[in-house]
Parts: sequence; C-alpha cells; structure tokens
Amino acid sequence: MTPQLATLLVACQDRKGLVASLAQVLYGHGANILDSDQHTDPVAGMFFQRLRFDLSSLTTDRVSLEHGIKEVGERFAMSWTLSYVSRMPRIAVFTSKQEHCLYDLMIRHRAGELRCEVACIISNHADAAPIAAHFGVPFHHVPVTAETKETAEAAAHEIIEAAKVDLIVLARYMQILSSAFVAKYPSRIINIHHSFLPAFVGANPYKQAYEKGVKLIGATSHYVTADLDQGPIIEQTTIRVSHRDSVEDLVRKGRDLEKRALAQAVRWHLEDRILVYAGKTVVFD
Amino acid sequence: MTPQLATLLVACQDRKGLVASLAQVLYGHGANILDSDQHTDPVAGMFFQRLRFDLSSLTTDRVSLEHGIKEVGERFAMSWTLSYVSRMPRIAVFTSKQEHCLYDLMIRHRAGELRCEVACIISNHADAAPIAAHFGVPFHHVPVTAETKETAEAAAHEIIEAAKVDLIVLARYMQILSSAFVAKYPSRIINIHHSFLPAFVGANPYKQAYEKGVKLIGATSHYVTADLDQGPIIEQTTIRVSHRDSVEDLVRKGRDLEKRALAQAVRWHLEDRILVYAGKTVVFD
Amino acid sequence: MTPQLATLLVACQDRKGLVASLAQVLYGHGANILDSDQHTDPVAGMFFQRLRFDLSSLTTDRVSLEHGIKEVGERFAMSWTLSYVSRMPRIAVFTSKQEHCLYDLMIRHRAGELRCEVACIISNHADAAPIAAHFGVPFHHVPVTAETKETAEAAAHEIIEAAKVDLIVLARYMQILSSAFVAKYPSRIINIHHSFLPAFVGANPYKQAYEKGVKLIGATSHYVTADLDQGPIIEQTTIRVSHRDSVEDLVRKGRDLEKRALAQAVRWHLEDRILVYAGKTVVFD
Amino acid sequence: MTPQLATLLVACQDRKGLVASLAQVLYGHGANILDSDQHTDPVAGMFFQRLRFDLSSLTTDRVSLEHGIKEVGERFAMSWTLSYVSRMPRIAVFTSKQEHCLYDLMIRHRAGELRCEVACIISNHADAAPIAAHFGVPFHHVPVTAETKETAEAAAHEIIEAAKVDLIVLARYMQILSSAFVAKYPSRIINIHHSFLPAFVGANPYKQAYEKGVKLIGATSHYVTADLDQGPIIEQTTIRVSHRDSVEDLVRKGRDLEKRALAQAVRWHLEDRILVYAGKTVVFD
Repeated sequence: MTPQLATLLVACQDRKGLVASLAQVLYGHGANILDSDQHTDPVAGMFFQRLRFDLSSLTTDRVSLEHGIKEVGERFAMSWTLSYVSRMPRIAVFTSKQEHCLYDLMIRHRAGELRCEVACIISNHADAAPIAAHFGVPFHHVPVTAETKETAEAAAHEIIEAAKVDLIVLARYMQILSSAFVAKYPSRIINIHHSFLPAFVGANPYKQAYEKGVKLIGATSHYVTADLDQGPIIEQTTIRVSHRDSVEDLVRKGRDLEKRALAQAVRWHLEDRILVYAGKTVVFD
Repeated sequence: MTPQLATLLVACQDRKGLVASLAQVLYGHGANILDSDQHTDPVAGMFFQRLRFDLSSLTTDRVSLEHGIKEVGERFAMSWTLSYVSRMPRIAVFTSKQEHCLYDLMIRHRAGELRCEVACIISNHADAAPIAAHFGVPFHHVPVTAETKETAEAAAHEIIEAAKVDLIVLARYMQILSSAFVAKYPSRIINIHHSFLPAFVGANPYKQAYEKGVKLIGATSHYVTADLDQGPIIEQTTIRVSHRDSVEDLVRKGRDLEKRALAQAVRWHLEDRILVYAGKTVVFD
Repeated sequence: MTPQLATLLVACQDRKGLVASLAQVLYGHGANILDSDQHTDPVAGMFFQRLRFDLSSLTTDRVSLEHGIKEVGERFAMSWTLSYVSRMPRIAVFTSKQEHCLYDLMIRHRAGELRCEVACIISNHADAAPIAAHFGVPFHHVPVTAETKETAEAAAHEIIEAAKVDLIVLARYMQILSSAFVAKYPSRIINIHHSFLPAFVGANPYKQAYEKGVKLIGATSHYVTADLDQGPIIEQTTIRVSHRDSVEDLVRKGRDLEKRALAQAVRWHLEDRILVYAGKTVVFD
Repeated sequence: MTPQLATLLVACQDRKGLVASLAQVLYGHGANILDSDQHTDPVAGMFFQRLRFDLSSLTTDRVSLEHGIKEVGERFAMSWTLSYVSRMPRIAVFTSKQEHCLYDLMIRHRAGELRCEVACIISNHADAAPIAAHFGVPFHHVPVTAETKETAEAAAHEIIEAAKVDLIVLARYMQILSSAFVAKYPSRIINIHHSFLPAFVGANPYKQAYEKGVKLIGATSHYVTADLDQGPIIEQTTIRVSHRDSVEDLVRKGRDLEKRALAQAVRWHLEDRILVYAGKTVVFD
C-alpha cells in the first residue's frame, strides 16, 4: 500500500508570515506535517521551504487543498511544486560505453533506494543492451556522430516524450547535448562530471588531476545547463590519492565517487529535495 | 550591536497542528522566522522543532510573546526552551594535564566561533594556569584525590554557581564525576571520549584500538550521565590509521578528532541546536 | 600480454641485514624491484616486507630465483610467499539474499579492478542465479538448515576444491561457518561485517546503532577466524548519520560502506598486500 | 636521550640495482634499516626512496657511512639528502592578522607533534606578539607596504639567516613574496591556500566557493614557487558545506581545514618525507 504522502516545495522572496501561512493552509485541510525544512538566504533575500505531509487525515480533498496552496502561492508570489508520493516519477538513463554508473543506478533502483520507474536506457553504443535486458528495462540504441547529432537528439527526444520521462540522468554519457535539447528540460537533466568542479572542467579531468599532482580527486553531480560543466552543483565527493596512483588508479577510485555523487543527486531529485536558484542548489537532505 | 534574535526549542508527543500553532503564535506577535527545522520520530511518536526568529519586528513585546508560547506549550504538553541571543551563555571548562582541547576551545572562542563567555577554567592540576592567564580567564586549581573527591566537587560546584555557569565542558578532564554532581546538571555537562563509542569504553581507548588492530579511530562528544561513557552522543569523528601507527601516533591523530568533536558539540549546544530524548540526541545542524 | 611480474611477501623476527639480503638476492638474479614497502613493528619485534619486481630481465630463471629466496628465507627463519602475476587467483563468492555486495564485486571484476577469476558463486538461496548467469559465472545453490549445516559445508568444500579456489569471499553470506570449515582456509576467507567493529558485534548491528544513537555508522572487512566477528581487520569505512535516519536509512547508507570495505579487502588480498600476525593485519597499500 | 636515527632521501633515474645498492651500503656499515619506502614513477622513469635507519649499531662511523653513500650516489647520479634526527631543524613562522594557523602550529609543537625548534615568528602586524611571548618564541614585527616590500623582505631574510632557519612556514601570511625571495628557499617555504587548488586560485577563495555553490570546500598546503598558488601540492583537505553556510561559515569551517593541511605538510617536511619533482610531490607517509 502506497502511503498517502505529498511534498510541497516553495521558493519566493522572503517576507514575514510565510511559514505560518503555509502551515496554516495545510493544517486547515487536515494534512499532518511530517517533515519541514526551511532556509532563508539573507544575501539573496529568498525564502525556501520543503514540507512533507500525510494526506490520509485530510478533512477536505486534494483539489481543495491544491486550491488553498494556489491561493497562498499567489498571495506571496511563490513558485511551488506539489508532488504526490503515489505518483512514481519516470527516469531515462543516458549512457555510453562506461557502464559503472548505469549498473549502480539499476542496482540501487532494484534495492528500493530510488523511488522511480526506469522508463528507458538510451545509449550511443549497443554495449549496454544486455544490462538493460538483465534489469528488464527498454533499451534504445541511438548512435551519434557530428553529422547526425541533431537527428539523434530528435530521436532521443521522441523516445523520452513517448516514455513520459520526468528526469534524464546522464550516467557517463559521453556526448555533449545541444543547447536546444537542454533548454527543453530545465533542472531536469542531471549529469556526473568526474572532477571536483570548478577544478578540471572539460576533457580528461583525471589526467589533468594526475599532472597537477593533487592529493584528492572528486566527482560532481549537477543539473545540465547550456554552459558545459557550469550547471548548479548538487553533490560533490572526494577521495585521497597519492603519488602512487597512476591515471588508471585515479579512474578506478573516481568510479566510486561518480557512482555515489550521481546516485545521491538522483535520489534527492526524486524525493523533491532540490531547489535551484541563482545557479546554485538548495538541498533539503 | 547584538541582533535581536531568539531560538525556540520544542519537544512533545506528535500531533496534528503543531507546526501551524507554533508558526501562528510567532507570526501573531510579529516575529519573523529565519530558520525552522523540524523532526518527527515515527518510532517514538515524538515531535521536535527548532525555530529561530527575529524579534526586531515584534508588534507586541517579549513578555507577551512568552505568554503566547506558554499557552501553546500547555495546550500540546510541550517541553520547550526559549533563548535570547542577546544573553550570552557562560561556560566552565574542566581540564587536567592534557591541554589540547582547552587550547582549542579558547582559540575558537577568541575567533568568535563559540558564542559564550568563558566564565572559568577549573583543573585538578596547576598546569593550565598560564593558559588561562593568556586568554584572560579566571583559573581555579581544585586538586582531587580519592579521599577529597566529595570536597573537591563541592568546591567546584560553588565556583560554578558563583560564576553563573550554564554549561560545563570536560576538556579531557581525567576525573570521573560523581552521580550526585552529574545529577545537578542534566544535559548541561559535555564530555569528550577518545574513541568511537560504544567501542572502547573505559580507560586507554587508544591502547585498546592499537591492540585490536582497527583501521580507523574515533572520538565521541556526549552529555554526561551517571553511566560512564553512556550519555547521549552529540558528535563523532573518525580518521584512518594503519599498521604504521604506534599507540603514540593514535594519540596524536586522536587529538585532532577530540578537538573537533568537542568543539562541535559545544557550539551546537550554545546555539540551542540539541534536544535530548530516550538517551539520544536530535541535532538541528 | 601479461607482464612478467612477481610479488614477494615476507614476515620474520626483525634483524639487521634483512632488507639488504632480500634486495641482494633479487638483484643477483637480475630482477628489477619496482615497488618495495617495509614495516618494522618495534613492539612485536617483527619485520615485514612486500617487494614487487619485474622478471623480464632475469639473468637466471624462476627455479633458480626461488631457490635463492628459499635460502635467504631459511637463514632468517622467514615465512614468505611468492606470487607470479601471470597466475590468476580464483575466488568463490558466498552470498545469501542480499545482493549488493555480490553485484558490486562482479561489476568491479568486469571493470578490471579485481585481478582474479570468479570461479563460482555459492548461495543458500536460489535468488542469485540470474545474477551469476548475467556475469557468466557458475552458480551453486547449497541450501543450509541447522540440521544440514555439516552436509552443506561439505558440499561447499567439494565445490571449492573442484574449482581450485584461492580465496573465499563472504558477500553478506548470512550463515555462520563452522570452526572446522574455517580452519581449512586460514587467512583465505574474507567477510564483511556491517558495523565498525568492535562496536556492534553479532546480529542486527544497524538496529543496535540506531538504538544507541551514534552519529556515524561503519562497515568492517576482516579475515574469518573461529571467533565470530573477531578476525583480523582489513578495512573499515564510516559515514555520518543523524537523528533523521531510520534503521532502513542506516541499512541503505551501510550498503555503500559494505561494498567499499569488502571490495577493498578483496583487492588488497588479490594483490598480495596483506600480512596477518597477532590477530591484526599489515596492509601495504 | 635522542635516538641515534638518520633518514636518507634519494631521487634518481630508475635503474636496476638501486634498492640493493642502497641497502648494501647501509648494511655494510652496520646501520639497521627501520623503515624503507620506495616509489618508481613509470611515466617519468624516476626512482625515489626514503630509508630510516638506526646508527647505534654502526660498525664504522658517520663520516665513513656518508662517504659510502656519496659513492653510491655518484654511481647512480642520485640526488640525496641525509638527516640526523639528533639535529633539530629550525623553522620560522610568517603570519599576519589571522592567528589560527600560528596557534595551531605552536600548540602542536608544544605537544611534541613537530620535531623542530621554532626559531622565530615574523609578522607584518604586531598582533601576534603576545602569542609569541606566551610560547616563548622571538617575535619580529616587519611591516610591509607596496613601497617597502623589498626592504621588508631584506629584513626578513636577515632575521632568517641569523636564526639559521631551515624551513619557512607561511601561516596565513597575507603578503605575496617576491620571486627573488622565493628563489632563495627552493622547496623550503610551505604555504597554506584556503581552497582545494587548482580551484579558486587568487583572492577570496571562500567567497568564490560561496558564489559557485560548491558542496565541499578545501585547503591546500604547497611549496611556494614563483608562480602564485601553483607550487607542488603537499596536502589537501575538504569538508562538506551546504546552502545553509554563509561565507562566514565557510571561513570558520575552512580554518579547521587550513590548520590540518598546513600542520600535516610541516610535519612531513620535518620528518624528511617529501620529495619534489616535476612540479609534484612524493610523500612517504
């Protein structure tokens, strides 16, 4: 039995009475608040809140509740989203030849860590087909070359729309998506970059790290924007390395970082824990 | 100029309407909520909240606000505390011969990390006197032997009361306080134990760790209760060790852990971030 | 082409001339030392060394080299092992219903992180059969009940011997192996325990951790001995937890720790980096 | 009683017979090797070794031993340094107004963590004078302005030479040293930079980190070269941050990172654990 829970995410200019008004509207409809996390950014003058509540005790109904929230939202010029736990979000995983992040997501999904349906796996190589089959997920091979990029993205877009996908996860997808494609999914594409951004943007970050002689390497998950490797950072992880580590060792150690940073970001997104503003994220973890 | 802020910490049985009622009473008096963190423990059926708010916009006054909170508190059988940032809490630091935690606290205090006044330093050895002098804090040498323990604790008690101390910090104080003494300060004595409790309780935890051959060592800060090393855990830190580390190396590495775990606990306590229940802590960090 | 490398692991009472004698015998046969790590335990008066060297430049042959090492070994009463990288060690993975460590090992193996052949997967449940099939590894279902334990272990033993297994990995295998079985494979069975030993030995460590209210949880990989959860520790990992984490959250967070601590231990073992003495390990990482 | 120990640090082109030759020369003079760590960089074709040995059993004398090492060194074109533990290295600490790193070094020194004498403290402000006095270290106030930089550096140089300083530690010294000054002390000036280099070079790294919205901040200790913030990295540390952390919080959290990264680097340097080549470090920890 799916629990009757919902999550309300709110962002707006800070004003007095915001917390009280939101609590009041939920209480007024009989919703029981289970978790409430709030943040005020004094520099930006912004207010953010995440409210998770139980609907089983509603004294009105969902339509009426949504109407009430809408009314408060308008009063304070809030941007807000309301998600019902009963509705499973759907994700598409993009991958290339490196399979560790794909495997990691699938195994976590299977273990119940990621509350979603994996709608499809899309790759520019056929290698991941047996993995998709093993986990019972539809696989789409969409090859990409410099010449066919536009067509390939159109094909991917069609697959995603047909599969009613809510979130795109780039699990070491080695292609750069066009600005036009990215613009279709604002704050709905999560990428994993294999360095602690903003250090080592661009290609071969592990080689860059080796040559620089750093003593720790990192991985960064972020929302994808038109600016390569510059989107809002969601999670970062690091691990110690030493002079003993070759580039190959950095790659191996980095795989662990990438898996964790990406899975964490996907989980937070699926649980409506992330708000984006001013090129940064608020993560209610 | 001290900001006009206050912090409300609340614990009670979970019920519907708690968040709304608390937000409402603050809003009703014109207080502006800056930070709100809340936790519901579904196992224990308990509700916890920390609210930090600005008083500068109060439309009534403090007495009236406190009255309003009291009324809500009674309605829901809440236990609650209200602290004004304008009132500086006062701490007493107990120490013995090892000085690293004492130094660490004093330096952090001097850097503005710990919002309190250091009312006094009490030690069973005279060694710390020059440190107290350097930082301009009254020093009390209260020697303790098996025979004089009761008298010594009475003397310490008198000093603490005279200095109007709110929190006692045991900064590697190598004496075990009597149950009678501890009972006077429930959730108001913080100790640092040099292991990741519950592993290695009692004496010589670093030697125990060395002999066991663990690959990480830890430190644990906790409130002191009558049960030695069993009080509610506030913070724990760990660091990697290897076969290369002698007991002395563990002691050295451990000092860093102890300093951080103790300072963090003291800071959280002073900022009214900790609630204790069922032998555990809720830390709103 | 497999590189012509070998690893020499040595342990003995500390004496002068050990490093020189070992270096001399390798040099004398034309071996080129690539990596040398050494440890002297002044408390136990013990000497340990790991030497990795290139055989491609041997001026004699392997038989002659081994003879030379044997001679030095006898002179200093060394216990030593010599492994050729050209010989792939073979592992057997034992598992039950929880599949995350099994998956993790298989994916790391596939990515080239674990230099071994996975000879077989043995489980007391049939659930892992499709996973074994996906990775192309022989699967053996060996059910165990209190009554059939001896027979089951005999069956497992037979499978292991037939498969010429060098190392047994207990990847969340939920059965306790008998002392008789364990005695057959000294320092050749690696287990993962889901706590930072020695805290929380025995059953349900995550539940114990939850009830204790610790602020970090851990995982420990260790060699299996007749004393449950008391074998030499190889690797330990920890992660922060808070009052927000339910037992289920600890289990989820712990899976990541277990995977890393187990995989690291297996990798070190396979690379001849671990020496056991006095109930502890020396790990040349 | 000072133990009769010595440390030999060696770097040269990789060749067969290096380990054997070094071990042989020490053994030949009766030195007992306590610790030996070695690294071969296959990319650069370089060989590095650190040998720590006991001189109390020498069958010849120091002059004769040094002669033997020199002979081997010439044969293999080694660059090498030999340090006797009986000789205490001397350090000068440069500081400005921020005192946390200075305090941290002094307290660690007092606790016996740093095997050196603190020859003097030099600052462009007078603020640190009482700290120097508390720890009994000579203090020199050397003000610096854009106009007087050359004179100031000359004064500092004179103080350092008079104090026979082996290592200069920049403990949040907020002045940029001239290339000419830096050139006098190659691999003998250690600085702490308050970011995980190469991210956030230059001024105000915490502000840069805040604006970028990173989820971890770092600190980096490195040898100073003529290129600002580009010298060989010795140690890096990181800590998690979140949207809740203001720039001031980052500064506070960063202080802990800076203290640890700097102290670790100084300790390693004083124990002859660091070799520099190709703009990077080998750290035998």
